[in-house]
Amino acid sequence: MKPLRPSELMPSDKALVPFVSVDNMMQLIHHIGVEPMLRDLAAYIEDDFRRWELFDKTPRVASHSDVGVIELMPTSDGEAYGFKYVNGHPKNTREGLQTVTAFGLLADVYTGYPVLLTEMTMLTAMRTAATSAMAAKYLAPKGATTMAMIGNGAQAEFQSLAMKALVGIKTVKLYDIDPKATAKAARNLAGSGLTVISCTSAEEAIEGAQILTTCTADKANATILTDNMVGAGVHINAIGGDCPGKTELHPGIVARADMFVEYPEQTRIEGELQQMPADHPFTELWKVITGTAQGRRDARQVTLFDSVGFAIEDFSALRYVRDAIRGTDLYADLDLLADPDDPRDLFGMLQRSKG
Amino acid sequence: MKPLRPSELMPSDKALVPFVSVDNMMQLIHHIGVEPMLRDLAAYIEDDFRRWELFDKTPRVASHSDVGVIELMPTSDGEAYGFKYVNGHPKNTREGLQTVTAFGLLADVYTGYPVLLTEMTMLTAMRTAATSAMAAKYLAPKGATTMAMIGNGAQAEFQSLAMKALVGIKTVKLYDIDPKATAKAARNLAGSGLTVISCTSAEEAIEGAQILTTCTADKANATILTDNMVGAGVHINAIGGDCPGKTELHPGIVARADMFVEYPEQTRIEGELQQMPADHPFTELWKVITGTAQGRRDARQVTLFDSVGFAIEDFSALRYVRDAIRGTDLYADLDLLADPDDPRDLFGMLQRSKG
Repeated sequence: MKPLRPSELMPSDKALVPFVSVDNMMQLIHHIGVEPMLRDLAAYIEDDFRRWELFDKTPRVASHSDVGVIELMPTSDGEAYGFKYVNGHPKNTREGLQTVTAFGLLADVYTGYPVLLTEMTMLTAMRTAATSAMAAKYLAPKGATTMAMIGNGAQAEFQSLAMKALVGIKTVKLYDIDPKATAKAARNLAGSGLTVISCTSAEEAIEGAQILTTCTADKANATILTDNMVGAGVHINAIGGDCPGKTELHPGIVARADMFVEYPEQTRIEGELQQMPADHPFTELWKVITGTAQGRRDARQVTLFDSVGFAIEDFSALRYVRDAIRGTDLYADLDLLADPDDPRDLFGMLQRSKG
Repeated sequence: MKPLRPSELMPSDKALVPFVSVDNMMQLIHHIGVEPMLRDLAAYIEDDFRRWELFDKTPRVASHSDVGVIELMPTSDGEAYGFKYVNGHPKNTREGLQTVTAFGLLADVYTGYPVLLTEMTMLTAMRTAATSAMAAKYLAPKGATTMAMIGNGAQAEFQSLAMKALVGIKTVKLYDIDPKATAKAARNLAGSGLTVISCTSAEEAIEGAQILTTCTADKANATILTDNMVGAGVHINAIGGDCPGKTELHPGIVARADMFVEYPEQTRIEGELQQMPADHPFTELWKVITGTAQGRRDARQVTLFDSVGFAIEDFSALRYVRDAIRGTDLYADLDLLADPDDPRDLFGMLQRSKG
């Protein structure tokens, strides 16, 4: 980045905010390695789930329009403050644009100064997969080796590699209503060390799988898994039901499974839980991680992680990136904060900048 | 800015977000001129006040700590969506840091894509002054020539020049409890075309002034103006009372004046209005601008603009900057949004980026 001010007017270190671009993020992932970074992210997320109670948790601040939604997801642990900007515009795909774009910011609570601005589309894909795998560590049956991946869109490869890195999955069975999506995922996973089996039906994909991951893009209530498809002892990792009116599982499965959730207030309006009566039981995942609630109880139990994505996971990912870029050149310093020598002399700073 | 990706992987135009740094903003102000830009900003703000009812108005989303607050202030007019990040840390000054830093983002509601990221410390100083002067156009006595500027901190020069540009003020009388602040403002305003009179008491400053602007930094309830200091026919522009527990005026003045506010729900907890009973009458400024409520009624009336700053003013300022940077080189393109050719192939984009 070229110097943005004459050197005698250079802002102080604190007035410069490290910025991680999309390209920087991709190079950071390559620098660390996809699987090691998924493991690291899961460790940061797990740390924050252990500290769940001290977080300032607020629901997303959403601005809805006829064609989509723009959301801010803020949270704080009392030391750092983070938020993610994310939009959701299903019609964008038809116009050659992304359905979801995201970026995030981390700030120091003590000074209020931002300390990191970063792309979060790649990072959200990584943190979503890391969260799924972290949950599966506690909930999947012991010795699980095979995952069915139903829905082979943008999350499919990240989910597969996270389950490999954290849970030890060796085989992934892919299925999508669009065979081109399955072919894309199979191609991308070639050489990953996973045995990849492309399937032509959901039934075929889930046969012999101990973990069933659903991540489909349908906006409406859909039934990706019907009740008779799910046998005893599996773990369901439901990623795709993540907004009001969008679910993936037959209510019979949801009723039969033991449900684990991130933030109940949000899951109730966005997750599979929206299909259930208000008194439907669930367990908060953070309680399993701290040991105050039980995860998987026995080998025949059906567990369901009803994942919708929560601000704390983004916060963990932001903390991780802040730490991971230290000592690298995978960021640029943005001159984002006005920083006069005398705080009362903002106008003098303006006058002196006249070239 | 150096190219961030190999050219064959360059993101599309929409994936690049124009970024206006602090230096860019200062050069933009010089390029346009301080007073012309204050006039332009006031016109954008006035346009948005005319459209007040169609805005999505939510209170700020605040995260408080023992030492300060971090706030997000979002709003939307249905076409564009904007938010400002702003912190308030009074103790920062003692540590050589700014009390307030700010940046903002504008996005397209139709696509959800950000279209502008900009510093907002300089810009907020400009929009605050432009809003004050816009209000004074409707509320100050006709033919006002003299303003008392009580509190000579970061806003003082901006307020003085906005009142010159929009209301025709020719003389500004400065007073601050710290004579160094007054000397700083007087020095900065030399050559501006304003007659600048430095005063040693608030009483001296307000003598002969038709507009009384208060902008002091005290956090506690203070009485910058006492009841007997305010005669008939003046307009009070109260800027400094802008958070809970922070007021500047004696309740007797507030009771006697006709009060004009931005967003009543916010003014009630942050402005001078917090001193008054719940049924204290006020007029919303946007109604004066659209002609559905009366502004100044007669020459002897005391008018009070109880300004706390509202998200719509930031939105107007963001719209203005988006338009003003077109055709200039006063921004850099940030590679903020991941943009795979096939939205489902985020992982393939990551793989292909491996250098």
